[in-house]
Amino acid sequence: MLIQALRRLPGVGVKSAQRMAFHLLQHDREGARAMARALTSATDSVKHCALCHTFTEAEVCRTCLDPQRDRSKLCVVETPADQSAVERTAAFKGLYFVLMGKLNPLDGIGPKDIGLQKLFARATDGSVQEVILATNFTAEGEATAHVIGEALKAKGLKVTRLARGVPAGSELEYVDLGTIAHALVDRR
Amino acid sequence: MLIQALRRLPGVGVKSAQRMAFHLLQHDREGARAMARALTSATDSVKHCALCHTFTEAEVCRTCLDPQRDRSKLCVVETPADQSAVERTAAFKGLYFVLMGKLNPLDGIGPKDIGLQKLFARATDGSVQEVILATNFTAEGEATAHVIGEALKAKGLKVTRLARGVPAGSELEYVDLGTIAHALVDRR
Repeated sequence: MLIQALRRLPGVGVKSAQRMAFHLLQHDREGARAMARALTSATDSVKHCALCHTFTEAEVCRTCLDPQRDRSKLCVVETPADQSAVERTAAFKGLYFVLMGKLNPLDGIGPKDIGLQKLFARATDGSVQEVILATNFTAEGEATAHVIGEALKAKGLKVTRLARGVPAGSELEYVDLGTIAHALVDRR
Repeated sequence: MLIQALRRLPGVGVKSAQRMAFHLLQHDREGARAMARALTSATDSVKHCALCHTFTEAEVCRTCLDPQRDRSKLCVVETPADQSAVERTAAFKGLYFVLMGKLNPLDGIGPKDIGLQKLFARATDGSVQEVILATNFTAEGEATAHVIGEALKAKGLKVTRLARGVPAGSELEYVDLGTIAHALVDRR
């Protein structure tokens, strides 16, 4: 039963689940107990931030409460992991909206499932002047950015998108053609 | 805290743990609760079989209790996963002893840590006539087999080892030289 439960983790098949169960039971029962406590406490207390929709145990998350952040800029990302990637650059001092997913009609993920209404309400609260779309550069991420961008432009907001281009440190020879084409169009 | 707890799983780094935590909290809170229950119940109730040392919730595991098994043959494996690999072949009808590890002096894993005393007691209980060493064909597995084999031969038991050779379905051209050399020596 432990093996079946572990298989519900993304990217974990039978063999990995067996290996994990063996490791926990043979070498790290304290780790297994800690994991059980963390899972129970997280499922009981983690909810969504009233402002940015990310995971938090409070009503409003710490980033949204930070008085140092620039309230006129709102960066839209897909997941908390994407948010922390942007945070690590230290190049953005505004606030975030975390979609917690992306539009994916094939999987039945529509505008309601990723809290677009909440985003529209948040973006039009009067303090936001620019919305920066930082969804992933995948087909779904681009479609999500397009839908959000059109809707917010219709409400008169300034909407920008992360620049596409050649990654830092890469050689042109090994960069795919679509990326080079975008970098040419977006040249500055 | 959930991410830290998930990182204690073998083979799970920061990114995987983030992805797992996001998946559980956003898409599968019921799965997270099921996993917490499975972890708690397994750490509380899983112990070692009194006869073969594998994981079981009873005093003696189901395989050891099975009256159909041949009690004169004892197959020694490293882990429950190795045991189920042998079981799936349906080519062995004897009983098992599961070491729950292997000798690894570099990591400080000595004879006491893998229950060799329990194996020696089990192998000399009078019913066992042949011990088949099915530890892995790695450096540590071979060393473990060697140590066990010498000790049991000294007690007058018949000790055999799984045959080394060319894997079924493989072409000689792509088989490593050590394997071919062993297959030549063990030819029949």
